[in-house]
Amino acid sequence: MKLQLALDIITMQEAIDLLKVLGNSIDIAEIGTPFVIQEGIKAVREIKSEFPSLIVLADLKIMDAGEHVSRMAFEAGADIVTVLGAADDATIRASVEQVKKYNKSIMVDMIGVKDIYIRAIEIDGMGVDYICVHTASDIQGTGKNSLDELKIVKNLVKNAETAVAGGIKLENICEIVKERPEIIIVGGGITSQPNKKQAAFELKKIMNQEVLY
Amino acid sequence: MKLQLALDIITMQEAIDLLKVLGNSIDIAEIGTPFVIQEGIKAVREIKSEFPSLIVLADLKIMDAGEHVSRMAFEAGADIVTVLGAADDATIRASVEQVKKYNKSIMVDMIGVKDIYIRAIEIDGMGVDYICVHTASDIQGTGKNSLDELKIVKNLVKNAETAVAGGIKLENICEIVKERPEIIIVGGGITSQPNKKQAAFELKKIMNQEVLY
Repeated sequence: MKLQLALDIITMQEAIDLLKVLGNSIDIAEIGTPFVIQEGIKAVREIKSEFPSLIVLADLKIMDAGEHVSRMAFEAGADIVTVLGAADDATIRASVEQVKKYNKSIMVDMIGVKDIYIRAIEIDGMGVDYICVHTASDIQGTGKNSLDELKIVKNLVKNAETAVAGGIKLENICEIVKERPEIIIVGGGITSQPNKKQAAFELKKIMNQEVLY
Repeated sequence: MKLQLALDIITMQEAIDLLKVLGNSIDIAEIGTPFVIQEGIKAVREIKSEFPSLIVLADLKIMDAGEHVSRMAFEAGADIVTVLGAADDATIRASVEQVKKYNKSIMVDMIGVKDIYIRAIEIDGMGVDYICVHTASDIQGTGKNSLDELKIVKNLVKNAETAVAGGIKLENICEIVKERPEIIIVGGGITSQPNKKQAAFELKKIMNQEVLY
């Protein structure tokens, strides 16, 4: 089980400083969508070059031009690229082709997907590495939560691993961990905490305990 | 009727050179999604500062964090920002709020939306400026085309203007123009032509003729 840190609203220098502080408490550094929009793909390149042993995910939320955009991510050093579950099959398949060519990984972000049952099964058949259930930050607090969707998708998929994102923090990670997703994605649950290193450490500790017992 | 040029796979310098050549043959310069990923939001800032009289559209295809991301676009000088029709209503509404605050415009990109009838009506009620039907570049050539969707949406919307994108060029613009969308978006129909200025000029000429007669 891996801990992914979402770096969303952050400068290049703040991201580097934070990742230095966190050390190996996290497994995957996510170059979040707003961070990519702010800095461009060089954010991926710089983080990977500064932290070569970290897994770097480029959260490009690809919706079209799957081949070109996923290639941009991998050429910049990303280990994982994200494609939207709402994208056309052709876009997901074009990205999967690039993933094979570069020997990298792909995560399909199910954010905004209306019928998650049907779409998860379809996408699971496309050779993707991860299917990520994701409650948009804009609707957190409305009662919709990623845990319910994680349970659904966990039961449906036969090939892909699962990932989960949206409002996960120390207070609610236990119930997420019990569902045994491969990747747990945390943003504010680390970046908004007074002691970020300790927050990451404690999240990781719960994840490890639940794996052992 | 406005002609929007999609700048997708292009460097900063190539974009500036091309826009200088095109002059006022186009109305809107679209900083395309791959261009933003390549350069970051500074691509919007530089194009707007170099061509202040051009309308600049930031094709950010917002899927979450509507408030933050649309604010980034407007702070960089964008006149129009794009949000995905596949996004949650809350994300579209959060972007609309920023649009009002900055006195700018918003285009909802219907790419990948499964039930375009229902979603167009829903989005038309949210106070957006443009609803854009858009055949993904990854599925152009499969028979699916933007013209059919344009006809549907044109009949449904009562408030928003319409825009259309996906494989439009000199050979097929006439039938598009007949449907009278407010914005016609062209990429390769200009950028892949041997004489780009002439291509833009001829596209624009057809658009103007159809308006007159």
